[in-house]
Amino acid sequence: MSKASAPGKVILFGEHAVVYGQPALAVPVTQVQAEVRIDKIFSPGIRINAPNIQLNDKLDSLAASHPLAATVRNTLATLEAGSLSGVAILVRSTIPVASGLGSGAAVSVAIIRALAKHLRKDLTDEQVSQLAFETEKLYHGTPSGIDNTVVTYARPVYFVKGQPIEILRVKKPFTIVIGDTGIPASTKESVRDVRIQRHKNPERYETLFAAIGSITRTAGQLIENGMPESFGPLMDENHALLRNMGVSSPELDNLVEAARKAGALGAKMSGGGRGGNMIALVQPGKAGAVARSLKEAGAVNTIINKVV
Amino acid sequence: MSKASAPGKVILFGEHAVVYGQPALAVPVTQVQAEVRIDKIFSPGIRINAPNIQLNDKLDSLAASHPLAATVRNTLATLEAGSLSGVAILVRSTIPVASGLGSGAAVSVAIIRALAKHLRKDLTDEQVSQLAFETEKLYHGTPSGIDNTVVTYARPVYFVKGQPIEILRVKKPFTIVIGDTGIPASTKESVRDVRIQRHKNPERYETLFAAIGSITRTAGQLIENGMPESFGPLMDENHALLRNMGVSSPELDNLVEAARKAGALGAKMSGGGRGGNMIALVQPGKAGAVARSLKEAGAVNTIINKVV
Repeated sequence: MSKASAPGKVILFGEHAVVYGQPALAVPVTQVQAEVRIDKIFSPGIRINAPNIQLNDKLDSLAASHPLAATVRNTLATLEAGSLSGVAILVRSTIPVASGLGSGAAVSVAIIRALAKHLRKDLTDEQVSQLAFETEKLYHGTPSGIDNTVVTYARPVYFVKGQPIEILRVKKPFTIVIGDTGIPASTKESVRDVRIQRHKNPERYETLFAAIGSITRTAGQLIENGMPESFGPLMDENHALLRNMGVSSPELDNLVEAARKAGALGAKMSGGGRGGNMIALVQPGKAGAVARSLKEAGAVNTIINKVV
Repeated sequence: MSKASAPGKVILFGEHAVVYGQPALAVPVTQVQAEVRIDKIFSPGIRINAPNIQLNDKLDSLAASHPLAATVRNTLATLEAGSLSGVAILVRSTIPVASGLGSGAAVSVAIIRALAKHLRKDLTDEQVSQLAFETEKLYHGTPSGIDNTVVTYARPVYFVKGQPIEILRVKKPFTIVIGDTGIPASTKESVRDVRIQRHKNPERYETLFAAIGSITRTAGQLIENGMPESFGPLMDENHALLRNMGVSSPELDNLVEAARKAGALGAKMSGGGRGGNMIALVQPGKAGAVARSLKEAGAVNTIINKVV
């Protein structure tokens, strides 16, 4: 039996603007995990069992475009193990899907690492991330590459499209609370809508992207210099700019406001928007109170996560 | 009779960091003014009457270091009118003193322009600003040059020490509310304290200055691109960084908090800190409510000012 797991991720700063070359800052969410277990079985072929999505089928009967099947096939090709047979892959995850927490990438990374372990082969982080990225394309069309990167390295990441990954050194830990609106969000659609709006009003959108980039860089510097307690209002500002961009929603605004009223140092939507999750920066002692307020304000789920 | 007046000013972003080369953003406060009137009188010499500071004396009997006397003497020297005699200079101002609203610079600019008008001579804005700057040195030791610049041009200014003045084009007007703690603040002392702290902990302070600079630049871009409603949380962030720097005070924090609770889009201390004024960005319809809340929270004076 071989096992591997991978955390979720959440974007702290820079969603949407990252598509246009601005930096983004994302952190792993270790309170939720995707877990993959590989067992030897007597029947031939490869069986994939993913109870979360009611999948229990043979690899051969899954379409080439099925993300789990594609991940397994690409990984086996990379590991030169196309003939693998007689195994069952069990995929489980506590990461909410379609909410911007990187569940797809986490499942991919866990599958890739479990397969490599089962085959007693080594893959570099770079290879794992690249393989997960291939699957991301099936989910998102033109993924930014953040999800696979953060999930693979399980470290806070300062991300600029097309540039080498920069691990963010968190000098002083900080606590975030994540609240889920419960409304499924399609990053693909949201990114497409921003593209259309940008085409109509390029000057306005370039200004918004540049402002978000500047905020993201500033937050990164405060975090790397051990002043996480000071970046809260930058989250408020990033939220204001995302609202201005038209990607927030009444439900997200409502949770963001609830977090602020409960004493959060700052709060914003996270990810593509229109639904999905929001995050708040909190003093450690206030995490419980903020999470409770989010529940009262309608959050279907909350996660308290320390970023180290 | 010759008359001239000049507005107050308030710093929107960048105080303290400006001393270390970062940009600052300041706007005129036209609701308060310094006014100077020059009348011919029969007695010889020059009489200065400034009821605000209980001054009513002959120029000749004032020390060289007296700011009003220095302004008059420097201006007359520049205008080659050292022999001026038989005039009374009446100086009045509704700008609170020692509170970061630029009352000293406004008085200087009004005196300089009234004298030039009286003598029917032209001074360029550049000359007026430079003459006012000379007097600023008597007040502040090493002034940044913001006060004389904003007051002279009576326009919002993006200011970097040692660089040509950049007038900020405000694409869409916005409304600020200023609240006075009533506690006299010495910019000179506050700037000196920051210098000492920076010497002890250069890395920390450079990070804070850089973060403030980045925020100031971002706010400038949002203002120039017609998105003033989006820069509120940048004020909150700037305040958080100034607090971190140790230049805020319980009274300032209290008014900042009161403004936010009353619905301000953002709020921060303004100027040297430890006392003096704070400012809030408000939606026009909320200006009255925010001003009232500031009074209730202990502000001795409030000013509602539209920035155009």
